[in-house]
Order: sequence, then C-alpha cells, then structure tokens
Amino acid sequence: MSDLTLTTFNWVPEAPRGFVRDLRVRWALEEAALPYRVASAPFDDRGPAHFAHQPFGQVPWLTDGDISIFETGAILLHLGGLSEKLMPSDPRGRAEATKWVFAALNSVEMASLPWGMSKFMGHPTDTAAWKFVDDFLKLRLKHLEPVLAGREWLAGSFSVADILMSDVLRVVDGFGGLADSPACRAYVARATGRPAFAKAHADQMAHIAAAGKARGA
Amino acid sequence: MSDLTLTTFNWVPEAPRGFVRDLRVRWALEEAALPYRVASAPFDDRGPAHFAHQPFGQVPWLTDGDISIFETGAILLHLGGLSEKLMPSDPRGRAEATKWVFAALNSVEMASLPWGMSKFMGHPTDTAAWKFVDDFLKLRLKHLEPVLAGREWLAGSFSVADILMSDVLRVVDGFGGLADSPACRAYVARATGRPAFAKAHADQMAHIAAAGKARGA
Repeated sequence: MSDLTLTTFNWVPEAPRGFVRDLRVRWALEEAALPYRVASAPFDDRGPAHFAHQPFGQVPWLTDGDISIFETGAILLHLGGLSEKLMPSDPRGRAEATKWVFAALNSVEMASLPWGMSKFMGHPTDTAAWKFVDDFLKLRLKHLEPVLAGREWLAGSFSVADILMSDVLRVVDGFGGLADSPACRAYVARATGRPAFAKAHADQMAHIAAAGKARGA
Repeated sequence: MSDLTLTTFNWVPEAPRGFVRDLRVRWALEEAALPYRVASAPFDDRGPAHFAHQPFGQVPWLTDGDISIFETGAILLHLGGLSEKLMPSDPRGRAEATKWVFAALNSVEMASLPWGMSKFMGHPTDTAAWKFVDDFLKLRLKHLEPVLAGREWLAGSFSVADILMSDVLRVVDGFGGLADSPACRAYVARATGRPAFAKAHADQMAHIAAAGKARGA
C-alpha cells in the first residue's frame, strides 16, 4: 500500500502559476485515482530540510513511506509502477513508456526550455545564440510531428510519457511555437482535454490562491 | 536471459569523438560485464529503419530481444534492471538511483548542454542570453557541489546515475567550467578513472577508427 505525499511551494509568483511542475504529479495521481496528500514548502525561505529532499531547491518532491523522490520524471516512473493507468506493467510496454519519458525531458524539453526562457525574458532574436536555440527546437519538433501524427499516445495507451511530453509542449504552444506542428498542437489539446489535467490545474491554482491569502499576497 | 545489441553511428566527425553517447551504454555494459554486440548505423544516410528505432535520428539505441530502447537514460535504467552492479534492486535503492538519473539529465545536462554548445560554437559572452545560460549552469553546480563533497557516489554505491552525471560533467570540465567546483571535478576524475570507462572510451574510438578506414576517411 502506498502512502503518498506531494510537496510543492506554498506560493509562487504570477508567471509560473499553472505551470509549476507539481501539476505533472497531480495529473498522474488524478489519472490513477491514487490517494495522496499535498504539503507545502516555503517559497521564500528554503532551508536544509528542503534541500534534503530536493538538492536543487526546487519543487516538487514526492514521499512514499520512507522513499523520497525528486525530479518529475523519476516521480512519474515511480507512480507508473503503482498503476497500469499510468504505465503498462509488462517489460516491453514499460520500456516503451520509459523511453518516451526520457525523450520528453532530455530530447524535447532540453530544446524547449532554453527556447521558452529566451521568449519569456525577451532576449534579442537577431543573434547566433537565438538562432541556435530556435533551430534546436525546430529540429526536435520536425521529428516529433510525424510520430504524433501517427498515434494517439506515445506508448500505445495513455501513460506518464504523455503527461510529461504534453506538459513540455504546452509551454511551447503558449508562445506560439507549435504553429507549424499541427499534430503536436492536436496532441497537446487531446492531453490537456483530459479531466485529470483540468483537476490538477485547478488544484494547483487553488493551492496557490489559498497560500496567497495566508501570506497576505 | 538478455540479448543485447547496441547500435551507434558507423562514423562521426572529429569533434564529438570520445563523447558520442554510446559511450554511456558501453560503460554500463562493461561495469556489469554483460555480453553485447555493437552494430553500426550510417551517419550520412539516416533512413526509415533508423527513425523507427530512434525517432530523432540520433544514436545510440539498444535492443534486448524484441525490446528497442532509445535515450541513454532509458537504456541505462533498463540495464540497471539486469545487474545490481548498475542499480540496487530494492525499491528504495532503485528510487534513489532513478532520481539521480533524471537529475543528471533534466537538471544538470539541461543547463550544461546549452552552455557547452555556446562554448563550442564560440557565441559572444557579452549578451543577456549568455549570462542566462552561464548563470543557469552555475546555479546547478552550486547546489551539486555540496552533494558531491559529501558522498563518493550519488545513490549510495556506484550506479547508472554516476555514469550519466559524470559524463555530463565531463563535458563541462573539458571547457574549464568546473574550476570553482572541486568536488564535482574530483567526482569526474573518480568516475572516469574506473576501468570500465577506459574500456568504453577506447572501444568507441576504435569503432570510429575502423569505420573511418572502411569509409576512406
């Protein structure tokens, strides 16, 4: 029997609201209908207890009994082991889901995060650095597009890989970066149209609003 | 019984030699003394058979019977399941190794890859874009340094997490980026001082040299 507690910040500034990575974990937990508690860590004052769970001072982390896990990829693989709604349990299906979990984070987000941060920070786009970042993402999307045009979900049935990939692409979509990638766009709409995404998103926003009131923000 | 074939490019240009990611897989296979074959895919002409195994047109991929896996993180987790020399088999130890596998790729390489590419391409360093990239990596190293100062290996004993983290940091070290991170530097030296790394590195170089001869390069 699992005993799951998700820890996230008690509050975040306005920009990342709806995009804090606890959403990925909430989404998986809601898809699998696993019982869980949500705990808060102070955003403003990150002490040794925080770094003991998340050595980079970020969120989220998940505890399951005496196991403590950070990195949403690792957390979602752990949850995938608890429910077939999140990951097939046969070795081949598990390998399929696992490779797409890493592809979402290490092939696509590797390119989309610098791209999204440059957009967000308004870096100039007439530089060699921007061209590299933009070309890098476009190359990834070029190869991902035919994959997503040919299947509903990455690993046969819906899995944790789709939670991660669609959450990564959602940020790109928000900056208009999927304009030439209709299959990627349709995939984001398909994934974020699931009731468990809506519940996870609403719960994150409610958590921040409640904390903001307590904080006087 | 596993039936492992690692596929990598038949040839690569000079710059990435010694850094092609098949090294991570060779290293793990050598640590575990698992029997394996190495197959070649054309560097110059990447056809549908290549994209069927690696949708982004990269290398390596690993087949284990009818299972085909790309992404070195996914491949190393698969190999970790085959040998306790690569990953503990108890749930807590497995979770420890898995979270550091993702941290190596999604927290540290996420920052080090744009940094290393900027260095390699000689992008100007008087820009906001460079400052963002450089600060991002420095922040990650700042938090990683006390972790590595306090332990020999990331997850208790040597594991696939150390193969990935040290291979990521090795690139940073090559560009002088670990000057202010003595524990990270010592960790890279400790990891790459293992016989299995030397064997993997030599085998990659020999593979490229043999292919180069066949290719007339």
